[in-house]
Amino acid sequence: MAERVWLTGRTFFRHYADKHEVLFAGSGELQDLFVRAVAEGLESAAPIDALAVGLDALSELFADRREFARKRQAVILANRELRERELIKLASLSAALADTLGRHGIAEPAASLTAEVGIAAFRVGFERWIAAEEDRGMAELMRESLDGLKAVTSGRCG
Amino acid sequence: MAERVWLTGRTFFRHYADKHEVLFAGSGELQDLFVRAVAEGLESAAPIDALAVGLDALSELFADRREFARKRQAVILANRELRERELIKLASLSAALADTLGRHGIAEPAASLTAEVGIAAFRVGFERWIAAEEDRGMAELMRESLDGLKAVTSGRCG
Repeated sequence: MAERVWLTGRTFFRHYADKHEVLFAGSGELQDLFVRAVAEGLESAAPIDALAVGLDALSELFADRREFARKRQAVILANRELRERELIKLASLSAALADTLGRHGIAEPAASLTAEVGIAAFRVGFERWIAAEEDRGMAELMRESLDGLKAVTSGRCG
Repeated sequence: MAERVWLTGRTFFRHYADKHEVLFAGSGELQDLFVRAVAEGLESAAPIDALAVGLDALSELFADRREFARKRQAVILANRELRERELIKLASLSAALADTLGRHGIAEPAASLTAEVGIAAFRVGFERWIAAEEDRGMAELMRESLDGLKAVTSGRCG
């Protein structure tokens, strides 16, 4: 039994070069899914609504991962290096999104600004989703984030 | 003469614990100025217009620093550790801004979303301002950033 646990541990660490790697193992999947869903949304919708399509896709991806996400966040917040890596992940996501928007005919600076809006909605929506007392679904909170951004920028806020 | 240069170098490094420190020496000043100007703007304007007040203040601060900013950016982009530090600086700026907005009666998530909008406008406007061929002033580019964000979120874009 002890040996089996040890083997499991070895297999685990063979997959993830360092023990923190597992915390970022899904980053590529997240980025690909978000960017692909936004690109699909752009076929028939304005950029802001394409972001909503992307955020819906992420909400499905994360649907049954709330407890993992909460534990992951606690580990990341406690470690400066991991916080840096999380920021890099989001900056990379923003750049990939801006790139895709550009390839769909959206000029700069609108492409970069739209990407930043998408990341802002995701970041704030995600933080609320993993908050201790929160039990609403991610899709609802992401829509609230986007609506909140619309309200802020239209001056209908505060 | 050689000795004087050496002394100057020593004085320089006594001020800045490592040689990269000088690249971030103005971060605290930037954050204080931005947050204070936004807080003043909030006395008489909606949050989105208070962000414009903050961005105007930053534009004055940076007015004669475009060449330094371009060189600084080149150094930062070439070094992963410095890129991380730059991202942390912006995340800290966003948190400080959200905190100030909260203390001026703006509830969450509006405070965090407004702060993210401000950082997005600053980030994109700053990148354009230091672009090689750009000669318009920072204030104009920051206003274009904010206007671009309004256009994106209102669906008047793409």
